Amino acid sequence: LVERMRSFGTTIFTRMSALANQTGAINLGQGFPDEDGPQEVLDAAVAAIRAGDNQYPPLPGVVDLRHAIVRHQERRYGLSLNADTDVLVTMGATEAIAASVLALCEPGDEVVTFEPYYDSYAAVIALAGATRRTSVLRFSDFALDEESLRAAFSERTRLVLLNTPHNPTGKVFTADELEVIARLAVEYDAIVVADEVYEHLVFAPARHIPMATLPGMAQRTLTIGSAGKTFATTGWKIGWITGPAELVAAARTVKQFLTFAGGAPFQPAVAAGLALPDTVFDDYAAGLAQARDALLAGLAQAGIPATNPDGTYFVIADVRSVGGEDAMQFCLDLPARVGVVGVPVSVFCDDKESAAGLVRFAFCKRLPVVQEGARRLSQLT
Amino acid sequence: LVERMRSFGTTIFTRMSALANQTGAINLGQGFPDEDGPQEVLDAAVAAIRAGDNQYPPLPGVVDLRHAIVRHQERRYGLSLNADTDVLVTMGATEAIAASVLALCEPGDEVVTFEPYYDSYAAVIALAGATRRTSVLRFSDFALDEESLRAAFSERTRLVLLNTPHNPTGKVFTADELEVIARLAVEYDAIVVADEVYEHLVFAPARHIPMATLPGMAQRTLTIGSAGKTFATTGWKIGWITGPAELVAAARTVKQFLTFAGGAPFQPAVAAGLALPDTVFDDYAAGLAQARDALLAGLAQAGIPATNPDGTYFVIADVRSVGGEDAMQFCLDLPARVGVVGVPVSVFCDDKESAAGLVRFAFCKRLPVVQEGARRLSQLT
Ligand SMILES: CSCCC(=O)C(=O)O
Ligand SMILES: CSCCC(=O)C(=O)O
Repeated sequence: LVERMRSFGTTIFTRMSALANQTGAINLGQGFPDEDGPQEVLDAAVAAIRAGDNQYPPLPGVVDLRHAIVRHQERRYGLSLNADTDVLVTMGATEAIAASVLALCEPGDEVVTFEPYYDSYAAVIALAGATRRTSVLRFSDFALDEESLRAAFSERTRLVLLNTPHNPTGKVFTADELEVIARLAVEYDAIVVADEVYEHLVFAPARHIPMATLPGMAQRTLTIGSAGKTFATTGWKIGWITGPAELVAAARTVKQFLTFAGGAPFQPAVAAGLALPDTVFDDYAAGLAQARDALLAGLAQAGIPATNPDGTYFVIADVRSVGGEDAMQFCLDLPARVGVVGVPVSVFCDDKESAAGLVRFAFCKRLPVVQEGARRLSQLT
Repeated sequence: LVERMRSFGTTIFTRMSALANQTGAINLGQGFPDEDGPQEVLDAAVAAIRAGDNQYPPLPGVVDLRHAIVRHQERRYGLSLNADTDVLVTMGATEAIAASVLALCEPGDEVVTFEPYYDSYAAVIALAGATRRTSVLRFSDFALDEESLRAAFSERTRLVLLNTPHNPTGKVFTADELEVIARLAVEYDAIVVADEVYEHLVFAPARHIPMATLPGMAQRTLTIGSAGKTFATTGWKIGWITGPAELVAAARTVKQFLTFAGGAPFQPAVAAGLALPDTVFDDYAAGLAQARDALLAGLAQAGIPATNPDGTYFVIADVRSVGGEDAMQFCLDLPARVGVVGVPVSVFCDDKESAAGLVRFAFCKRLPVVQEGARRLSQLT
């Protein structure tokens, strides 16, 4: 294995899901739903296989899906995109992130991101030979710290890798926070890669604000979306990048050599999904909010402090009061203690101190499953 | 776009398929079938979507598919692999190639490959910051030239990127040729990445010999396979890497950050496909051989010299006698001249001279389509 990748082992998600499978514990670790997305979307995929959509789609994605993405962004955010030049369908958001970073970062360039960060961010920055510069978001409000963010920028800054709504914290960046980031991006002439895969998983009254809607930002922002998150089809790996033609073209050039183009029968299915009425998206978020509340109730019963996230399907708990000073060890022991799997936040951090005692629990399972997980967690002492 | 990727534009396949769509010409350019693979495989994918296989598969691939790959390689080649450690399912062979090269090549390392080469080879070598060193295979027999191959090796050689059966030439490397490559790989302590995606598309009496079956080579060879080629489902993008645990682990580390894991409902379908009797694979190859013969007949009628390939679904024609000295221009004009699309071989070559006047035609379409394409080509003067 090349030197620059040696610090990256098997992702925590794979390890923790394996632990769940071995122990039979409830898997609140890796973030994937245990119910598949809208029946219309599943049916459309089946119909596409039957209809013969099983060969290479066009590199940028099938026309219907590109148009559906454009219409959806227009409808929800008032954004205006050209389906021919401003959209690239990818093999999930992970490929979208990899292609964007590898296309835009020269060795030695710097990438500003927040920590805790999604684990692939650090890995693809390293793969590009670039350097990550982080600003810490701190439990429990995870508010942006302008001073530390400014300190992360330099003349070498090429990209800001932003994630809103934010995994693992569940934070939804506010308009004020996005403005601070936008101002710095402009000041340092940086491009923003905005990973907004949880855009639809936001709990009222919180509201997702796409970075590309900030004044002047559309021209310097690549936005990443995900059908896996939006339609609970994480195993299909259909994602997309939208943004200015030139930046999308750069990502496309790299993308074609990472996987070429795929997911042929899923692409029309996702197009059908994006055309569903807003109530479908709202109902999914409302169901998740119920699961979130169930999980929080269990944690509260055990006296465990936890965030009340505005978005995503993750809660961060401070488990120090129940023996979790070393959160990794706590997570390894948790299946035996109460039959639940979670993920230590420290694996997403350079500043391990800032994550001491923090564990992420996912609430994207069916309500009875989350309720049972919460009941088990409530017994922690 | 980063400097090291600037010489790579949109792949020739995308450009030529676009030309076919615009002009309505018969697309013998990009290599994809116009009929989908065995009904059992398609049905199994539909059943998997219905059964709920729509969330992240395990990172190395679903257990059933890994076992099916192991059993298939045992049955066909007598190879013995461990399904837990020696197999990695990928988003198609393109990702398998990218992950292998990015995992194993440090900046400055050298990769030996043959030219003409599949276009993603050059791109991922560049993306890794490595250098390609090529040995030219020359029309019309494309025989290995030991002297030029030896000259491509050096102390900096890290990988040999081998493709057998070989795209675009249709050549199937012989036992003698593979031995020469193996000897040099051992002498220079290089790893072989053996792209064998056309392993089942070989025309009797020719026989595919996996590099990993050569004495001493299993321990230094990563072998790449493809469901897209084998089952005519190129739009599903299911491929795999097999080999020694340590090398597979290296590729897996990178792969998890390129796309994580996907194609969930396709994986059990491909497992079902690999368990089909050998007659299924043989019949597919026999059908392709018929199409090949039809194409060759058309070219012969026009007096155009062409290879009679032992494998893949590609023929190389020397079109200089019909105005094709500049093969790229010839291909751009061909739709207007006779309503056919082909691919100039020069785009796969550093030594453009060696590819002067050479055009690749794919014969993976239904027999009547290939016959009509052949009829049109036969009118070239
Ligand atoms: C790619 S596996 C991880 C899934 C996920 O997004 C998460 O659990 O954070
Ligand atoms: C990935 S598109 C190219 C398909 C193919 O393998 C070819 O035409 O050579």
